[in-house]
Amino acid sequence: RRKGFPEVIFGSGKTADQIVELFKRLMTQHKIILATRVSKDKAAAVRQSLPELSYDHTARILYYADKPLEPRTKGAIGILCAGTADLPVAEEAALTALAMGNRVKRFYDVGVAGIHRLFHHLEQIKQCRVLIVIAGMEGALPSVVGGLVHQPVIAVPTSVGYGAHFNGLAPLLTMLNSCSSGVTVVNIDNGFGAAYSASLINQLGEE
Amino acid sequence: RRKGFPEVIFGSGKTADQIVELFKRLMTQHKIILATRVSKDKAAAVRQSLPELSYDHTARILYYADKPLEPRTKGAIGILCAGTADLPVAEEAALTALAMGNRVKRFYDVGVAGIHRLFHHLEQIKQCRVLIVIAGMEGALPSVVGGLVHQPVIAVPTSVGYGAHFNGLAPLLTMLNSCSSGVTVVNIDNGFGAAYSASLINQLGEE
Amino acid sequence: RRKGFPEVIFGSGKTADQIVELFKRLMTQHKIILATRVSKDKAAAVRQSLPELSYDHTARILYYADKPLEPRTKGAIGILCAGTADLPVAEEAALTALAMGNRVKRFYDVGVAGIHRLFHHLEQIKQCRVLIVIAGMEGALPSVVGGLVHQPVIAVPTSVGYGAHFNGLAPLLTMLNSCSSGVTVVNIDNGFGAAYSASLINQLGEE
Amino acid sequence: RRKGFPEVIFGSGKTADQIVELFKRLMTQHKIILATRVSKDKAAAVRQSLPELSYDHTARILYYADKPLEPRTKGAIGILCAGTADLPVAEEAALTALAMGNRVKRFYDVGVAGIHRLFHHLEQIKQCRVLIVIAGMEGALPSVVGGLVHQPVIAVPTSVGYGAHFNGLAPLLTMLNSCSSGVTVVNIDNGFGAAYSASLINQLGEE
Amino acid sequence: RRKGFPEVIFGSGKTADQIVELFKRLMTQHKIILATRVSKDKAAAVRQSLPELSYDHTARILYYADKPLEPRTKGAIGILCAGTADLPVAEEAALTALAMGNRVKRFYDVGVAGIHRLFHHLEQIKQCRVLIVIAGMEGALPSVVGGLVHQPVIAVPTSVGYGAHFNGLAPLLTMLNSCSSGVTVVNIDNGFGAAYSASLINQLGEE
Amino acid sequence: RRKGFPEVIFGSGKTADQIVELFKRLMTQHKIILATRVSKDKAAAVRQSLPELSYDHTARILYYADKPLEPRTKGAIGILCAGTADLPVAEEAALTALAMGNRVKRFYDVGVAGIHRLFHHLEQIKQCRVLIVIAGMEGALPSVVGGLVHQPVIAVPTSVGYGAHFNGLAPLLTMLNSCSSGVTVVNIDNGFGAAYSASLINQLGEE
Amino acid sequence: RRKGFPEVIFGSGKTADQIVELFKRLMTQHKIILATRVSKDKAAAVRQSLPELSYDHTARILYYADKPLEPRTKGAIGILCAGTADLPVAEEAALTALAMGNRVKRFYDVGVAGIHRLFHHLEQIKQCRVLIVIAGMEGALPSVVGGLVHQPVIAVPTSVGYGAHFNGLAPLLTMLNSCSSGVTVVNIDNGFGAAYSASLINQLGEE
Amino acid sequence: RRKGFPEVIFGSGKTADQIVELFKRLMTQHKIILATRVSKDKAAAVRQSLPELSYDHTARILYYADKPLEPRTKGAIGILCAGTADLPVAEEAALTALAMGNRVKRFYDVGVAGIHRLFHHLEQIKQCRVLIVIAGMEGALPSVVGGLVHQPVIAVPTSVGYGAHFNGLAPLLTMLNSCSSGVTVVNIDNGFGAAYSASLINQLGEE
Ligand SMILES: Nc1ncnc2c1ncn2[C@@H]1O[C@H](COP(=O)(O)O)[C@@H](O)[C@H]1O
Ligand SMILES: Nc1ncnc2c1ncn2[C@@H]1O[C@H](COP(=O)(O)O)[C@@H](O)[C@H]1O
Ligand SMILES: Nc1ncnc2c1ncn2[C@@H]1O[C@H](COP(=O)(O)O)[C@@H](O)[C@H]1O
Ligand SMILES: Nc1ncnc2c1ncn2[C@@H]1O[C@H](COP(=O)(O)O)[C@@H](O)[C@H]1O
Ligand SMILES: [Mg+2]
Ligand SMILES: [Mg+2]
Ligand SMILES: [Mg+2]
Ligand SMILES: [Mg+2]
Ligand SMILES: [Mg+2]
Ligand SMILES: [Mg+2]
Ligand SMILES: [Mg+2]
Ligand SMILES: [Mg+2]
Repeated sequence: RRKGFPEVIFGSGKTADQIVELFKRLMTQHKIILATRVSKDKAAAVRQSLPELSYDHTARILYYADKPLEPRTKGAIGILCAGTADLPVAEEAALTALAMGNRVKRFYDVGVAGIHRLFHHLEQIKQCRVLIVIAGMEGALPSVVGGLVHQPVIAVPTSVGYGAHFNGLAPLLTMLNSCSSGVTVVNIDNGFGAAYSASLINQLGEE
Repeated sequence: RRKGFPEVIFGSGKTADQIVELFKRLMTQHKIILATRVSKDKAAAVRQSLPELSYDHTARILYYADKPLEPRTKGAIGILCAGTADLPVAEEAALTALAMGNRVKRFYDVGVAGIHRLFHHLEQIKQCRVLIVIAGMEGALPSVVGGLVHQPVIAVPTSVGYGAHFNGLAPLLTMLNSCSSGVTVVNIDNGFGAAYSASLINQLGEE
Repeated sequence: RRKGFPEVIFGSGKTADQIVELFKRLMTQHKIILATRVSKDKAAAVRQSLPELSYDHTARILYYADKPLEPRTKGAIGILCAGTADLPVAEEAALTALAMGNRVKRFYDVGVAGIHRLFHHLEQIKQCRVLIVIAGMEGALPSVVGGLVHQPVIAVPTSVGYGAHFNGLAPLLTMLNSCSSGVTVVNIDNGFGAAYSASLINQLGEE
Repeated sequence: RRKGFPEVIFGSGKTADQIVELFKRLMTQHKIILATRVSKDKAAAVRQSLPELSYDHTARILYYADKPLEPRTKGAIGILCAGTADLPVAEEAALTALAMGNRVKRFYDVGVAGIHRLFHHLEQIKQCRVLIVIAGMEGALPSVVGGLVHQPVIAVPTSVGYGAHFNGLAPLLTMLNSCSSGVTVVNIDNGFGAAYSASLINQLGEE
Repeated sequence: RRKGFPEVIFGSGKTADQIVELFKRLMTQHKIILATRVSKDKAAAVRQSLPELSYDHTARILYYADKPLEPRTKGAIGILCAGTADLPVAEEAALTALAMGNRVKRFYDVGVAGIHRLFHHLEQIKQCRVLIVIAGMEGALPSVVGGLVHQPVIAVPTSVGYGAHFNGLAPLLTMLNSCSSGVTVVNIDNGFGAAYSASLINQLGEE
Repeated sequence: RRKGFPEVIFGSGKTADQIVELFKRLMTQHKIILATRVSKDKAAAVRQSLPELSYDHTARILYYADKPLEPRTKGAIGILCAGTADLPVAEEAALTALAMGNRVKRFYDVGVAGIHRLFHHLEQIKQCRVLIVIAGMEGALPSVVGGLVHQPVIAVPTSVGYGAHFNGLAPLLTMLNSCSSGVTVVNIDNGFGAAYSASLINQLGEE
Repeated sequence: RRKGFPEVIFGSGKTADQIVELFKRLMTQHKIILATRVSKDKAAAVRQSLPELSYDHTARILYYADKPLEPRTKGAIGILCAGTADLPVAEEAALTALAMGNRVKRFYDVGVAGIHRLFHHLEQIKQCRVLIVIAGMEGALPSVVGGLVHQPVIAVPTSVGYGAHFNGLAPLLTMLNSCSSGVTVVNIDNGFGAAYSASLINQLGEE
Repeated sequence: RRKGFPEVIFGSGKTADQIVELFKRLMTQHKIILATRVSKDKAAAVRQSLPELSYDHTARILYYADKPLEPRTKGAIGILCAGTADLPVAEEAALTALAMGNRVKRFYDVGVAGIHRLFHHLEQIKQCRVLIVIAGMEGALPSVVGGLVHQPVIAVPTSVGYGAHFNGLAPLLTMLNSCSSGVTVVNIDNGFGAAYSASLINQLGEE
């Protein structure tokens, strides 16, 4: 892993004990360490042993940072979604992006069903260097955004929906078939992966 | 079938001979008869026997009408799609709607990738009584339209696309999961069915 | 959203606290507010803070109305299903329709396995202006009804079934492939969406 | 194979030469031999070598019989379908049933979209000993029939349809989830298999 | 429903109270009433109100019978499966068959992995009039049995398996594609439906 | 690639010219070169330029060998299938195995529907060191064979079937869920891959 | 569309006449115009009317450029794939990238089955600013590359494969589930879309 | 089952009582008995009755052995995976292999994302006689390993992943489509089956 990058633990399916042990081992060598997909209870258990860790409830990320997280980039990563249901994924992306040193701008009320709000924020959105566009239900937002902007768009389908949604399959297919150019896609609910790629892209504009 | 309704033959998988025979039988009793999904060649073969039939190349509909088709309704059915690829489905809907006596308004360049054109036509679109919104690729258009208007929207996914489109499955799922209210869905490429339902709805406003 | 329309909260995946806050914000501006997909326990928790809300156990809808809900339309929305298993979806539709001002007629014992009951009610069913037809298992009811009536039919597949039912996929496909014309489809278990579209259609007949 | 049973060749994917050879070998020992799924052209090629074979165009069956096929049973197998599109499957079933010695009654215009025709024939249908019910599109017919009769019903989904039909998957799932009891299912388009099982059942009533 | 047939309640998704009420209503008119898919706890709750009901733990059937269940047929329904995992489905079939008056013969250790046991019982199996063959995992048993016997075989896939089993999809497809003739299929885990059809068939041999 | 191994070209989707060029390049360094999935016409075109190549019609393999192919192993690879439809896959396996120096024994009439033939050959089958078991339709053969023998079994599903076969998905799932131990699986129609692995295994017994 | 960007026509499903007309209209205003997915024959037909167009056989792109295409960027887009089967997709990406002004470096023999070639080119690969990694079959290459480099990786699954490949579904899922960070995905065979996004990213490094 | 082979119980879906009874019956005749898929709690319950059984927490195997398990083979089975998430499957394989008398070598940190560790162990891996390669997420490891070694590779997809992983479907398809030769596949999470086949293969090298 590149120097200066945070170290990341995939918390899902690991016990609190295993996570404690991983943090202990990594804390000797790394300045920022994230554990994603950590439930509230598991986080509390880990923090009994390691009270220096911070926990973000919405992002479900437990993390260690040797000093407060601060953006180092001029360019910003814009994160767009329609509302509360997608917040966990959006904040997983936001905190990951911040931990990688990026400025982050949040646009969390720009769903397709109320498209005027998207237009309301459009100028600000266009000033970001790269966009992460998150959507559950039918997942149409990245297509709409991609048609309006010239930035690279990373689309994240979420598992928010029911019935013929098939736990995120519907918006995943929507995004893969986007008729707007400039849209690439990551796995369902993968806010972390979107932020990681967005960070690599944002850094290119800094150099 | 209700008096005054056109009689409809599903042409796919029937031979020219079978279609000739069906028309002959039905022409003794009906004033308008449509055969949908009839290829150019099959239509030509049928018209050798029945030169009084008309054929619409784009809609792939072969039809008999005892007098020229004319709209009888005040209210209009609006038909929206993004462009040439969806024309066969859009025109199948348009001709079916006309054959059922409806005024039809076409908006055929309003795709999600160039959303300003949709806004350009919005006032006219809002004056229709019911909308048929057709889309292939990711199928996001009905969600966008549904969020902007108060008319009933009938969404038609098309088989236009490739790869993870799975011959229309992608836009079908998109439309079923629409986050805009007021959207109902018909089968992939089913312009006929959309127009049939739209006509029933449009008639309600005439009474 | 059109003036006079109820405001609607999708309750699934929101905490009681989030729902309380949303109601509080919306109650300053709206006369009718529905929260769908609210469990009994969550409803009780919300009503601790907001005792003026009503809760319908079967429909799983928590709602605010500044005065008792009453139908304002002459035309009725008919709601058809086969029996107790589909009641939650049917009542979600019924209460949504009522909240939007529609007269509602219920036909809740008209399954395909005992088709004589459907014929028994047929005249009454035909007097409705638009029909919502709900079915789990194989989902054949909308096809049968669609073949017998001339009203627009909105078909709702439900997740009631097992094995090769795949949580509603089976009746969803059935309804999308209906050989009866005049049938459009909404997402699995989406009683709300069916009622919303049915209401738009029913209003057309009022004007 | 039981004595007196016809021998059967699955013709699909075999060359005319291979079919000729198989018939020649079997004709030394069997009185009735069927080859199913044989196209018109392939049948003609085979009959160049073996002019004593008969070919049924609709059923796509090429067969040898040492004397004219005649029913030997008192009880009849009823075969039901909605119309011309399903005829190849229906006739594959009918000819197989006849070749196994069964009386066959055809009811070929009893689709769900025009359910009165089903009721029109119902008394005759009830006099059959076992029923084969064939349907494409949404495949609702076996559920409707199963709810009206007390005979064993063998349901055959067909590949007739488009879009979300997925080449027969839709009616297959419909039939497997039938809410009427007494319905069992065979593979898509498997008229032969339905007739084979129906014949075994019909024979039980003869003994 | 035919006179003398048991009345059947689908217990899954019904509350104990609803089941009590249904039994009470039906017990005034019917001599045998089955409720399938009733868990141990739900059965106990129902029997608090209705102690005259019997409960079969393995079959998960709660039932009322005015006198002890006894076979009335000469011919037997053979029920075959590989072992303990499939017992609930096998016994749902067995008790349903008995309640419909059929003699039942159980062959519960005849899996494909130890095929000699199938051969060991083959003569007895061949003396049954109709066979229900139940299998999870890869579901190969009905094909093997169908190739060895001349009775109608009703195949029941079960949800026993993991991974690429997809909760019964694997054996369902296996059975639908059986290369042995005389095999028809019911829904995954549908022991009830298999027995219902088998009973209709077995009765034919009695007449 | 290990010394002495044949070089292999995947012929599907390559033009005759591309295949000629590949052979020419490889023939300077390799003693045996196979091109799999080469149609009859394409093979003829290649052999115009390279008449020293041999072509096996059934296996659809075009190959170069500096001297006649001969088995070098004591142990044999047994190849089992049900009949003519699976021959192309079986022979692709057989020729690949031979080209890799293995003795091959063919058992090509041992389908599940006529299981006595399998027992007839069982002793010979048990003398092979490793078995390739090929099946289309429901794909039950590897489970049956695996339950009878102690050799490693490599199962190959084929695309032979229709309807709910889904081009080989049905037997693929069957084989992955085999209740017999000692069975591993390769891709649909992948006779080449099965033979390659079988050869690696057979060689272990030679050393 | 951003000034200086090429205009793009999706050629699939359009007739030669329609493509001619589109080019004519666009050539009055644009300096570079691409039509993707144009077959050899269709290209020839278009060039009868418009001989000034160029056609790239491998990329299947027909294009107009007012002067020879030349890279304008310092940074390069690296395009990686395993071999000839994926060339059409790779060259669709390469030509699109060039048309958008990017330097392109090709690495076309770096499949997972011969991983040493990937290592051989690794230093050169690492000097590119962004990578497009194309793979059919199991689609493992982007994961391997992503684990070795720090550039953004855009993964393109291709439809090259058979059986359980399901026309590209297999590598699509592989890429969406990549355990390497920094990988985003586009639709199956979408070389155009990958290049479009890669170009947006590459430009960021120029500024 | 071959003499000397352990007897195996599939523990999933069996009660502690049923497992006790099965062990008791088998312990009179067998020297080694494994019960796979036994949870910690169920194991504890069984061991109350049968304290002589051992339980491996990671492998979730409860077993009886008349003397300590020891490898008897010269050749080793190598077991490869990427890390902790796949340990249960890896250890199910390892303990099964040991119980069948095989030497086992573990390589548990060789994931595709950090491919240098795979190269680090490559010489040792190549000294094993047969390899079991386990992977969740995208499942690319068996392709990479298969391209580097000449041993038979048995690939095991695991259910470790999320979103478009579909509980193991993604790596299962990856492995079936492997572009490296010499790879065969078992069911998702089937460590037992992989070890069983690997043991059969490893024994061949002993003889
Ligand atoms: N393109 C179409 N898509 C769906 N349904 C159709 C189409 N065209 C006709 N139909 C329906 O098919 C019926 C006629 O079917 P048939 O009797 O097979 O010709 C009509 O009554 C219509 O309801
Ligand atoms: N286990 C079962 N699987 C499938 N259908 C069943 C089952 N048990 C009962 N049924 C059917 O369900 C009907 C009763 O459904 P309900 O009125 O919902 O209780 C009965 O007439 C049976 O046809
Ligand atoms: N029929 C086949 N199925 C699967 N893989 C094959 C087949 N034939 C050849 N291969 C593999 O494809 C590789 C050659 O691919 P290519 O370089 O595209 O010709 C060989 O090394 C084999 O491993
Ligand atoms: N091969 C391709 N795959 C995906 N999208 C494409 C492709 N080629 C062109 N497009 C997109 O299709 C649009 C043009 O579509 P159309 O107006 O139908 O020709 C372009 O603006 C591109 O964004
Ligand atoms: Mg854009
Ligand atoms: Mg709206
Ligand atoms: Mg109707
Ligand atoms: Mg019945
Ligand atoms: Mg049989
Ligand atoms: Mg074995
Ligand atoms: Mg990387
Ligand atoms: Mg290898």
